[in-house]
Order: sequence, then structure tokens, then C-alpha cells
Amino acid sequence: MARVVLLTDFGTADGYAAALAAVIASAAPGAVVEHATHDVAPGDVLGGAIALSRYAVLYPPGTVHLAVVDPGVGTARRCVAATLDGRHYVGPDNGVFTLVLRDARQVHMVDAGAAGSGTEAAPTFHGRDIFAPAAAALARGVPLTDLGPAITDPFLLDLPRPRQDRGKVAGQVLHVDRFGNLITNVPGAWLDARPSVRIHIQGRDVGPLRRTYGDVPPGQVLALVGSLGLLEVSVRDGDAAQVLGAARGSDVEVVPD
Amino acid sequence: MARVVLLTDFGTADGYAAALAAVIASAAPGAVVEHATHDVAPGDVLGGAIALSRYAVLYPPGTVHLAVVDPGVGTARRCVAATLDGRHYVGPDNGVFTLVLRDARQVHMVDAGAAGSGTEAAPTFHGRDIFAPAAAALARGVPLTDLGPAITDPFLLDLPRPRQDRGKVAGQVLHVDRFGNLITNVPGAWLDARPSVRIHIQGRDVGPLRRTYGDVPPGQVLALVGSLGLLEVSVRDGDAAQVLGAARGSDVEVVPD
Amino acid sequence: MARVVLLTDFGTADGYAAALAAVIASAAPGAVVEHATHDVAPGDVLGGAIALSRYAVLYPPGTVHLAVVDPGVGTARRCVAATLDGRHYVGPDNGVFTLVLRDARQVHMVDAGAAGSGTEAAPTFHGRDIFAPAAAALARGVPLTDLGPAITDPFLLDLPRPRQDRGKVAGQVLHVDRFGNLITNVPGAWLDARPSVRIHIQGRDVGPLRRTYGDVPPGQVLALVGSLGLLEVSVRDGDAAQVLGAARGSDVEVVPD
Repeated sequence: MARVVLLTDFGTADGYAAALAAVIASAAPGAVVEHATHDVAPGDVLGGAIALSRYAVLYPPGTVHLAVVDPGVGTARRCVAATLDGRHYVGPDNGVFTLVLRDARQVHMVDAGAAGSGTEAAPTFHGRDIFAPAAAALARGVPLTDLGPAITDPFLLDLPRPRQDRGKVAGQVLHVDRFGNLITNVPGAWLDARPSVRIHIQGRDVGPLRRTYGDVPPGQVLALVGSLGLLEVSVRDGDAAQVLGAARGSDVEVVPD
Repeated sequence: MARVVLLTDFGTADGYAAALAAVIASAAPGAVVEHATHDVAPGDVLGGAIALSRYAVLYPPGTVHLAVVDPGVGTARRCVAATLDGRHYVGPDNGVFTLVLRDARQVHMVDAGAAGSGTEAAPTFHGRDIFAPAAAALARGVPLTDLGPAITDPFLLDLPRPRQDRGKVAGQVLHVDRFGNLITNVPGAWLDARPSVRIHIQGRDVGPLRRTYGDVPPGQVLALVGSLGLLEVSVRDGDAAQVLGAARGSDVEVVPD
Repeated sequence: MARVVLLTDFGTADGYAAALAAVIASAAPGAVVEHATHDVAPGDVLGGAIALSRYAVLYPPGTVHLAVVDPGVGTARRCVAATLDGRHYVGPDNGVFTLVLRDARQVHMVDAGAAGSGTEAAPTFHGRDIFAPAAAALARGVPLTDLGPAITDPFLLDLPRPRQDRGKVAGQVLHVDRFGNLITNVPGAWLDARPSVRIHIQGRDVGPLRRTYGDVPPGQVLALVGSLGLLEVSVRDGDAAQVLGAARGSDVEVVPD
């Protein structure tokens, strides 16, 4: 049975998120609707992109991922749908798919009405009137190519790139999670060949690369390669963002010991 | 397959919301349980009513809507169930259905025990012991009339009504959503015949009626007809409630330009 | 159809919770995934245990309860799975099952890899790499005994116990819920035989035992036996924790009138 997985920044209290689920329930009655999250920070496209990258490919092929973090609704930004490795993606063309669709070849615009919603789309709620109908159409087996013309220039976020130079690695904090963990853009794989390093966050030395939280006493800062395969800085049983005064954009450096 | 959609102000952290889902899973094993929201502000019956009005009729006929925002649990307020256009509604008789059931002809009381929960209802948790069993019964196909006697006087919230007078429209903010948008009680349709107006919120002029957010630069206040068909006041990429110091009950006025 | 019910302290915004659901969707495609809560306070094992106790046994036998409140991930704490009354439980061996599994005879360790995830478990995300695969395995019908060796010493939280002495009962607040209700560890059954008592919270007299909120005027403090069967202290239409300055651990006393 087709599965449609929702990610938005709508919260749930106003009923916007439920409106998406309702449209899908009506337009694709056999589909299973799952709510990944509606708690992306309002308008935080990068936060949505990172959350999506944690689970999108863990769902089986055939899954339709509907991602609506859409501060540009009511502007000229396009609506897009794409397929990669058998999974479908529907949402605004604002970079929310940057981390999951970088290599996608099949990206199409979604024309309002193509998905068969039948009525004019409200210019402030494309989630309900364009994206959810398009997701339901894909769940019903409508081909991607029926939704609108192919495009070759999907919008991608211009993420800060980590750099390697003279034995040092310089990167940035991409995201702070609920626990205060600082997730950086430094690939863990870059550290495999460096047996002995120290990690600095905003100039402060937080020690060598550890394997997991239990390697340090409670309350201590540590660096490790997290479950996304990226360098993270944490405090065992604590909140690293708070303890270190760090946030998205904070500098991280890996230096030889 | 029958679908039961939950709306409450329980939050999820305490397990109250899951208790409703669990009761339905046991009493109507084939039903699909969906969570519209558990984040209605505690005791905010009007907020629940507005959220429900965003999605209730987008679900297909046969859907059972269970809405438990119930500050009066443990008082004499009645438990009700109703059917309108093939959709069922179950919850406290406190006005949470005001916006979706105004025209309902089939409203019944729900007698504790009628739904077959078998045990005495806890006097502080009718959601678990009366409403969820009743919703499950409707999902199983039990007729509404079996739940309790018909009533003709369901409680409706006394909402502030917008007024038209000598070319002006006067209304109020009904709700502030997660994004800080001010949703008023002025029907967009009232503005169709008024080509040239200006909107005032708490006496402050926020300009003419716009179509969508992209019509103004980021950070600017604007008025538009929102996705509920009501006049809304927003700030593009911002929070109108904060910027304007407005809240539920704030005055809105539409005046000729 | 098997049902897997998730409880975590992950929030939803970061995509961790969705990763669990995704792993189960892939490993047990026919299973229904339900989200009880992801809003347990970060690291609050007791809060998770109490939430779970509200709904676990209301689900039908065959349900798999996956509970991941796991501040000790990456330490030596064990992974466990258990079966009681036909319901399965999977999570860290840190006491999160204290209230639902006190009498369990069938408790097994979960060996990383036993559930067939195939890849090495990330040392910081056992939810995704050990617990969700194990829950999916149980949902598919894999016997508990296949997950790992039996254990006889599951970790249980050392909860404060209420005491009865010379006509008085002394207990503590176990949990404060979203509404500010103070849920104590005093069994309501202990009060059945005491027709005339007064309840003190932190030394303040909050009156006799009431039946429900409607027994007092709005704004007044009251004590009653709540929906878990435990003594609770509430404020009608208000927040008892705030009004009384009480929190988890606050003293409660029941004295003869």
C-alpha cells in the first residue's frame, strides 16, 4: 500500500497539517499517511532538509515524501515533484530537498490543477491545494511526468562546505538538535585517516574524537561522529549548544594533536 | 476502512492522547486512527473549533471526528455525538463543534456505557472512558441513535459577529496561528464587491486587500483573504501578532479607500 | 495486523522519530506504526514510564511497544525486550518499563544485529539501529527468544513508596502533567476505607477528597483520585503546580479530618 510521509513547519494546533492528511485521505483512500514532523522551526528550510535527510531513504521505495516548509508560498517559487531510487518527493522548489535529491535526474514542476484538485489553489496554502493533491496522485500511481514539465535546475541550498588545508579541517555547525547536539558539516569519513586529532568549537578545545557518550563522564563536552555520519559536538547528559554558546553557523575545526 | 481522527488539548507527553488511540485500537481493531492535533492550547475550545473547521470536511464521508477539548469534564456538561454529511463527530457539548455542526440535525447525547466500554467512566477522563468508546462504536457501524437520546439544543459558542454599516465592515481577530497570522471573522466574500478598501487593525492602517504574501516586500504587513475564506492580516516572513501587538479579540475594520 | 507504538523523548523536528518509523516500515511492511508521544522531557525516564503506563495495556495483545528514552545510549546499559500478557516491549534497560513490566517473567536482552538490521549499530542511535529493528522483528512474529539471552534482573526505577502510619498516609508527587495536575504515588484504594480525610500538599491543606472537578468552583484547589487510580491534586480550570509551587518530589499527606 502506498505511504505518504509528511514533513512541515505548520505545527499541528491550527489544523493546517491535518488538512494535508485529509486531502490525501480523500484523494488516495488506500494510502497510509504518516506524520514525520510538523515541528520544523517556522520557515527553516535547512532544518527541514536536515530532518528529511535522516529518514527519507530509510522508508521503502514507493514512499511519497511530502515536505512543506514554504516561506515563499505566494511568490514566484515553483512547485516540484521528483523521483529518486523509487521514492517520490513533493514540495516547494526552495531547497528543502537539497540533501536528498542532489543527484535526482527526474524533477518536474507541479502545475496547479494537474493533480486533479479541481478547484483554484488558495494563494497562501499550496500545501493543501497543490502539494497534497500531487502527493496523493503519486500515491495512486499517477506518473511523475503527468504533474508538469520536467525541469533541470531545481533550487539547491548553498550549504557551507567544509575545507581541508594543511592537516586541518574547518567546518561549521549546520544544525542544533533537540538535545543541544551540534551537528557539523564535517564528514566523519574525513577523520578516519587522522588517528590523533583535537576538535575546537568556536576556538574552544573539546578534546579528541570519541566513539560515544559513555567515553566521558556526565557533564563533559565531547566530539564524535554522529548517526548522520557527520562530526557532532555534544555534552553527555547535557546541552552542548547551551554549554558552549554555539549555534548554527558556529565554527568547528579539527587540528592534529 | 473507517477512520477516526483525534483532536485534543492533551499534548502527547503524558500518554492521555495515546490512551484514546489505544481504546479505539482495541474496540475497533480495523479502524485507522489519525492524530490531527493534541496541541490545542489547554482549555481553548474556540481554538479547537477553528482547527477542526480547517480539515473536518476535507476527510471523506464515514470519517469519525473525535474532539476532546474539555475543561468542563467532571461538571454537568453533556457528551454528544452527531452526524452531518456522512461524517461523525464525538465530544463534549461545549461548542467545540460550533463551526462544523451549525446545521446539524442529528445530534445525540452519548450515555456513559452506551458505547459498551463496560466499566464505570473515570469522572476526570471522559476522553478515554466515554468519547473514545463512542467514536470506536461509530467506526464499527453502530448507529448514532444507539448512543443516547436525541437533543435539539447543542451548545454553540457565541462568536463575535462581523457587522457591515455605511460602507464599513467591523470585525475581530478570532485566532492567531503558529505563524502569527491574525485570522478574523470577516468573510472574504464581503470584500468581493468592494474594489478599493483599506484594512485597519486596532486602528492601524495595514493597506489595501492583497492577494498573497508575494505582493509585498519581506517584513511588510498585509491583509488578504486566507485559506479559510476569512480576512487575515499577516507580515510577510514575519509574525503579525508580534509586530502589531494584536491578539484574539483585536478589532479589525475595512473602510473605503 | 501487528501494531508498533512508539514513545520517545526525541521530539519530531530533527527526524529521529521518523527514522524509527521508517525502519519499521521497511522491516515490517505490514505493521501499523503509531506515535504515542515523542515529547517526553529529554532524558526523563520516569516521565516516559508514567506515560507508557497510561496506555500500554489499553492496546490489544499483539501490540509492540517501543519506548526509547535513553540518556544512557553509548554506555554499558543493556537493550531489552519483554513480553507480558501478549504485549511486547522493546527499549533500553533503564527503568522505562518499571510500571508496566514489574511482573514480567519473559525478559530478554536484545543483541545488536539479532534483529537483522545487518549493519553495525551507530553507538549514539540505538533507537534506529537496534530497538526499531527488534520491534519490527517482533511485529513480524520473530520469537522474543531469538533476540538475545534471557535475563532475570531487568533494571527497575526505585520509586518513592507511599507509607501508612497511625492513620496518616505520606507520599510524594510523581509527575506533573500538561495541565499542572500533581499525580502522586498514593493509591486511591488506600483512601476507600477513610471516609473523612484532608489532603495536605507541602504542608498546605487542600481540603477533603473530592470526586471530580465540578465539585469545587473554578480556580479552587482540590484533591481527587485520578484516571490512573492515584491521588491527584488539581486546580479547577487552573494549574496546580503553578498555584501551589509544587513539583515532582513534593510531599503529600492524607490526614484524618
